[in-house]
Amino acid sequence: MNASGIITLTTDFGLSDPYVAMMKGVILSINPGAQIVDISHQIRAGSILQAAGLVHETFPFFPRGTVHVAVVDPGVGSERRLLGMEAGGHCFVGPDNGIFWPIIEGHKRTRIIHLTESKYFLPSVSHTFHGREVFAPVAAHLSQGIPLKRMGSELSNPVKLRVPKPREGEGVLYGQITRVDNFGNLISNIHRRDLESFLESFEPVIEVGDLTIKRLRPIYADVQEGEPLALINSSDWLEIAVNMGRATQYVGLASEEIVGAEVKVSRSKTPF
Amino acid sequence: MNASGIITLTTDFGLSDPYVAMMKGVILSINPGAQIVDISHQIRAGSILQAAGLVHETFPFFPRGTVHVAVVDPGVGSERRLLGMEAGGHCFVGPDNGIFWPIIEGHKRTRIIHLTESKYFLPSVSHTFHGREVFAPVAAHLSQGIPLKRMGSELSNPVKLRVPKPREGEGVLYGQITRVDNFGNLISNIHRRDLESFLESFEPVIEVGDLTIKRLRPIYADVQEGEPLALINSSDWLEIAVNMGRATQYVGLASEEIVGAEVKVSRSKTPF
Amino acid sequence: MNASGIITLTTDFGLSDPYVAMMKGVILSINPGAQIVDISHQIRAGSILQAAGLVHETFPFFPRGTVHVAVVDPGVGSERRLLGMEAGGHCFVGPDNGIFWPIIEGHKRTRIIHLTESKYFLPSVSHTFHGREVFAPVAAHLSQGIPLKRMGSELSNPVKLRVPKPREGEGVLYGQITRVDNFGNLISNIHRRDLESFLESFEPVIEVGDLTIKRLRPIYADVQEGEPLALINSSDWLEIAVNMGRATQYVGLASEEIVGAEVKVSRSKTPF
Repeated sequence: MNASGIITLTTDFGLSDPYVAMMKGVILSINPGAQIVDISHQIRAGSILQAAGLVHETFPFFPRGTVHVAVVDPGVGSERRLLGMEAGGHCFVGPDNGIFWPIIEGHKRTRIIHLTESKYFLPSVSHTFHGREVFAPVAAHLSQGIPLKRMGSELSNPVKLRVPKPREGEGVLYGQITRVDNFGNLISNIHRRDLESFLESFEPVIEVGDLTIKRLRPIYADVQEGEPLALINSSDWLEIAVNMGRATQYVGLASEEIVGAEVKVSRSKTPF
Repeated sequence: MNASGIITLTTDFGLSDPYVAMMKGVILSINPGAQIVDISHQIRAGSILQAAGLVHETFPFFPRGTVHVAVVDPGVGSERRLLGMEAGGHCFVGPDNGIFWPIIEGHKRTRIIHLTESKYFLPSVSHTFHGREVFAPVAAHLSQGIPLKRMGSELSNPVKLRVPKPREGEGVLYGQITRVDNFGNLISNIHRRDLESFLESFEPVIEVGDLTIKRLRPIYADVQEGEPLALINSSDWLEIAVNMGRATQYVGLASEEIVGAEVKVSRSKTPF
Repeated sequence: MNASGIITLTTDFGLSDPYVAMMKGVILSINPGAQIVDISHQIRAGSILQAAGLVHETFPFFPRGTVHVAVVDPGVGSERRLLGMEAGGHCFVGPDNGIFWPIIEGHKRTRIIHLTESKYFLPSVSHTFHGREVFAPVAAHLSQGIPLKRMGSELSNPVKLRVPKPREGEGVLYGQITRVDNFGNLISNIHRRDLESFLESFEPVIEVGDLTIKRLRPIYADVQEGEPLALINSSDWLEIAVNMGRATQYVGLASEEIVGAEVKVSRSKTPF
């Protein structure tokens, strides 16, 4: 892999603490020419699933040869392994806790390495901050072109992640809301492919909480202001939104119930 | 225009979602040497006015040849046009919804282009994320020195933005609060020039909410801790503040009433 | 000092206002090749103590020759001096209000300069934003290798900062909580050194709020989920945490009482 010199960071560290800055300092101390890009540091504390989805969704937009570091690591210091990976021309570095599982699932050929070569770590490794002492320096070395395979031995049984998938039953496609975005849009785990193969040539009827939406629209402005709509979003997920409003306030669910809420899709009686 | 290689980003996307990272990945895939600077991603959802003010206020501090991308775009996918612009030695890229109107108003010579040359876009353009598929790649190409005029045709009627301006009536200058900053300071739309030409050689009496402030101070520490003051801030706006405190808690207005609240300036009876 | 070209920023400006972006624009206008790294802009408004701790804790992870700018500056425009400093192979720029005092205390040899050479400032200096007009341009010039000593005269009496230190009395070590991190962990001002020299070969009994914790653990996962623990964290501070939970919700203190709350350590009766 030809290193691009770019390193992305995804963590649940927030932006108030010293943790992210320490990782950046470590990276720049090893590779002063690295270009560091924050994906997000606002992952919910401990949510491996949210981080996994975010890295999976964003990494293909970066140049090949980019190193993606993801640190949501509640098991830090325990027996969980340290993982480096190549897939799709990109490199990934993080704990072996399922955080890269959607990427592994989506790629036929991956090289997964159990990171053990401590000469690529900081000299002193604490028990509670492998982001700083292992993942940041390993990423910095990878960004300089050092081959991943030198950093440990092949790992054939990475930890899997339970990612909720949509299921079909009695003419209904059941999915769930996986996240609420900054605009209050509800993003589901129903992919364009799932929806198209389920609907065939019918229009959908979509139900979530108190909302029933009868067709897909291409854009937000296709409905009146304050009116709910459903669309396939720019990442190919079925999304429920309100034009110029927040769908979270229309769905009739308490805010802590929204992520995980069921989305039901059925076929309208009249074909498209 | 000689490109500086710097690209600034201003959006209402927040920092939890994949949207900003995707834009950065697209930019770096086209121009790996681009230097990307976040202005802010905390614009209130859909507030073209807030984004317009922020870009207008910050862009002159960047080197000439910088490309400024602003994406607050509730009309994405509709008939609203895609806009590129040169003004004051800088480049601007965003939706044609008024977001650059304060810059257009402030510059005699601007070149405004309706972006239509799809070879500067991503190959596949979604209906709902032109930030990623149009504005980011256009900015990346501009940052490499490709001339804006190649990217479309001249546009002579950009969408205007209604920016509230102060007005004078019966010896009073009326303005309004346009934003509350991180310190709880109230920033108004009354510019140093407006104030000076209104006051001539008098001292001002400034009223907003429950507060009446009788003169301008040069610095916060000129009054006791916890005491309100008025000053001309570092961007030349009339600002109401409280030394070591938050003016929002002294003004006697509900937090949702503060932005937009009226500011009245009258001349004190005794000349300065 | 050989400049690394890296400049870090620590402020209480937040990420919604134009202030941070203006500083970055000023830096890049002087040194377009500077690499700017945000430490944090989420310092509590006016908290010199919080900023001082954050800069002190993070700077050693950056390459030597890095310039660290810290702006928490409630006295801006008053008589307080403008300060540049070299310590430990790094450069520091900010107000003379104690913000670098922990670094000065920790280094035998420092060079402290009262910044007076206005040719390294922006041409026009406002009364209320020295971050933009003094500290940013000075940092940019330093990052290009201009020697600090040219920028003013030696300053021998920098303003000190009262940093709460742990104290010992009647067999008890008293400290306090200095910050709550993004995970709800409570970080104290008791350093590994203090604790080890106090405990000798005994195990500690640690009390804070309603919690009593009877020993130190190496990692979070050493206790059951939802169970509190104490550990020496990756920055060598005594930390109180809850595995997979937020210690703030277990400590029996109102959220505004936590920072500053007393931490008591006594020796257990049975030696380790």
